Amino acid sequence: MIIQKTENSKLPTFDPNNFSFGDTFIDHMIICEYENGKWGDVKLVPYGPLPFTPAMMGVNYGQACFEGMKAYKDENDDIFLFRPEKNFERINKSAKRLAIPEIPREAFIDGLNALVDIDREWIPKGEGMSLYIRPVVFATEEVLKARVSNKYMFAIVATPAKSYYSAPVSVKISDYYSRSANGGVGFAKAAGNYAASFYPTQLAIDEGYDQVIWTDDATHEYFEESGTMNVFVRINDTIYTPKTSEKILDGVTRDSFLQLAERNGIDVVVGDVKVADVVAALKDGSLKEAWGVGTAVVTTRFEAIGYGDEKFALPTLADEDSFAFILKKALVDIQTNHAEDPFGWRVKVDKKY
Amino acid sequence: MIIQKTENSKLPTFDPNNFSFGDTFIDHMIICEYENGKWGDVKLVPYGPLPFTPAMMGVNYGQACFEGMKAYKDENDDIFLFRPEKNFERINKSAKRLAIPEIPREAFIDGLNALVDIDREWIPKGEGMSLYIRPVVFATEEVLKARVSNKYMFAIVATPAKSYYSAPVSVKISDYYSRSANGGVGFAKAAGNYAASFYPTQLAIDEGYDQVIWTDDATHEYFEESGTMNVFVRINDTIYTPKTSEKILDGVTRDSFLQLAERNGIDVVVGDVKVADVVAALKDGSLKEAWGVGTAVVTTRFEAIGYGDEKFALPTLADEDSFAFILKKALVDIQTNHAEDPFGWRVKVDKKY
Ligand SMILES: Cc1ncc(COP(=O)(O)O)c(C=O)c1O
Ligand SMILES: Cc1ncc(COP(=O)(O)O)c(C=O)c1O
Repeated sequence: MIIQKTENSKLPTFDPNNFSFGDTFIDHMIICEYENGKWGDVKLVPYGPLPFTPAMMGVNYGQACFEGMKAYKDENDDIFLFRPEKNFERINKSAKRLAIPEIPREAFIDGLNALVDIDREWIPKGEGMSLYIRPVVFATEEVLKARVSNKYMFAIVATPAKSYYSAPVSVKISDYYSRSANGGVGFAKAAGNYAASFYPTQLAIDEGYDQVIWTDDATHEYFEESGTMNVFVRINDTIYTPKTSEKILDGVTRDSFLQLAERNGIDVVVGDVKVADVVAALKDGSLKEAWGVGTAVVTTRFEAIGYGDEKFALPTLADEDSFAFILKKALVDIQTNHAEDPFGWRVKVDKKY
Repeated sequence: MIIQKTENSKLPTFDPNNFSFGDTFIDHMIICEYENGKWGDVKLVPYGPLPFTPAMMGVNYGQACFEGMKAYKDENDDIFLFRPEKNFERINKSAKRLAIPEIPREAFIDGLNALVDIDREWIPKGEGMSLYIRPVVFATEEVLKARVSNKYMFAIVATPAKSYYSAPVSVKISDYYSRSANGGVGFAKAAGNYAASFYPTQLAIDEGYDQVIWTDDATHEYFEESGTMNVFVRINDTIYTPKTSEKILDGVTRDSFLQLAERNGIDVVVGDVKVADVVAALKDGSLKEAWGVGTAVVTTRFEAIGYGDEKFALPTLADEDSFAFILKKALVDIQTNHAEDPFGWRVKVDKKY
């Protein structure tokens, strides 16, 4: 790895108690370029602009995918990544579906560790605090032909984060728009999936909701995801979540929730979640809670679910009665080194640089 | 419009008889930036790189769409655009679906005219020659949040073109992969649609085909498009093409073919094109020809169509017996000012700059 540290650290201007999530960037980034059939050197360089023309294939053809992950700092200033191998596997699943060459371990895993290590002082400490890390790969060749690019850039950028969704949200079950097709790219963290979700989300917001519950595009009878999160519903004392498929992102948080639920003796059913069953449970009061899970927010509880012209309020559970809360706490405690980690999920970032 | 001409024209290095399509860029480009809720000045500047970081939303979330259109030079060195208003309308349909602000006429139409006018010497002349023009808009805000961007760049870049698909191709009917979902973005020229098509196309190429015939994702029983073209099949003496929908791009070439077919007294049916009917017609010999249409290639004739494990060869028609050839010629003659233009499709680019 080639290390080129900044001579102009912005750390003195960073106030961990007052910063804006998502557009405050740490001092460095990782970059690695693919050309002539192979990846070049992995470089750690100052965060900043690079020269690209508007003919860049990444923006013209959306040949790009990304990951979202976090690093946590504990009371002793030790830094931990959470299940980074899952993200490494997933970016390469996404890359394959988008005909992007496989990202090497040295760029992803070693790059991640070097970046977090060198910019460890940027990681805010305390409840809900973390570093949000964005590995991304995109086509950089300048060609106006709709075909696989011959050049790519892999990069890792990062921004300090607070858990930014705290209030419960209301969600609208989609009966028209969809985020993925059979034989499509819904399981991939493909750039284009997100752009496609913005307009339907905007329409839901205009109707007074916060997010969309995506349903299958053919019948709109089955839950897929909620916003950019996997979705769980609890009917009586069983929790249900859709089975992953080529239309559903295989979320790291979802997988962790499933393992934690089992460990906590909570009944889980992974399989079809029918809109009709959820609506019936909303009507008869057996739907106790519902929530989305994802790296950025960990958990977002739903306060209302809309379907057609109806909007159903969900009960408000005390934290100790809420499976969403119990599982979130169990997960966050492991992530932040406040609990034992029987799963081996936490990965310490060594001081090396 | 702000005009900043290059002091370093690459025109002396351009050989119109020997250039590579798609990565030879003309001297200038149009750019226009959106910020604080409005579009700024339209600028004509030298083609070249601009500073973007890997956190740019355009590559992270695929919030980007584009157009593809051509300018033609006739024997008198007059330059013509073809139905530019259709592309202007369409980019704004795409933009709306991707929650991108509407592109102003001054940027698109005036920008187009200025660029083509100023770089008119770059346009090669003669059979099949043209300038391929790429208007594109993408999100430029640097934020790691999956939400609508607040900043965009609209740009127009262009490359000299020869008709680059001349040989007939063989196509594989997709029975698994798909390019669009019900309630999705298939009708938009959304960047992400193209990336999503690369891997399935690669698999078809590995099987000995050139392109994929996309079918509906729910049943794979109906034709949608072929590669990045709209599709026509001729059974006996009637031509069939799928009705446009939210899953099918409303192609300018397709629309022009339909109008020309009517004018030439060719029977056209616009509606469902069933895989089963096409396969039956391939088997009983009533399928006379099939082809794709699009701006880049105008027409690509199919020499074989594959379905499952079967590959059906199509008859080879003499040009004068081929509806594909007749319609292509009628269209190209209008585009290049070799025939009357009863439709008012041709738009001359005035000498102004
Ligand atoms: C579409 C989508 N679904 C679900 C998730 C949750 O995945 P993870 O738990 O790995 O963050 C994400 C990412 O945050 C996502 O983008
Ligand atoms: C998916 C797709 N279908 C069809 C077409 C044909 O459209 P047009 O004739 O407007 O070029 C294109 C663009 O070339 C396309 O990208």
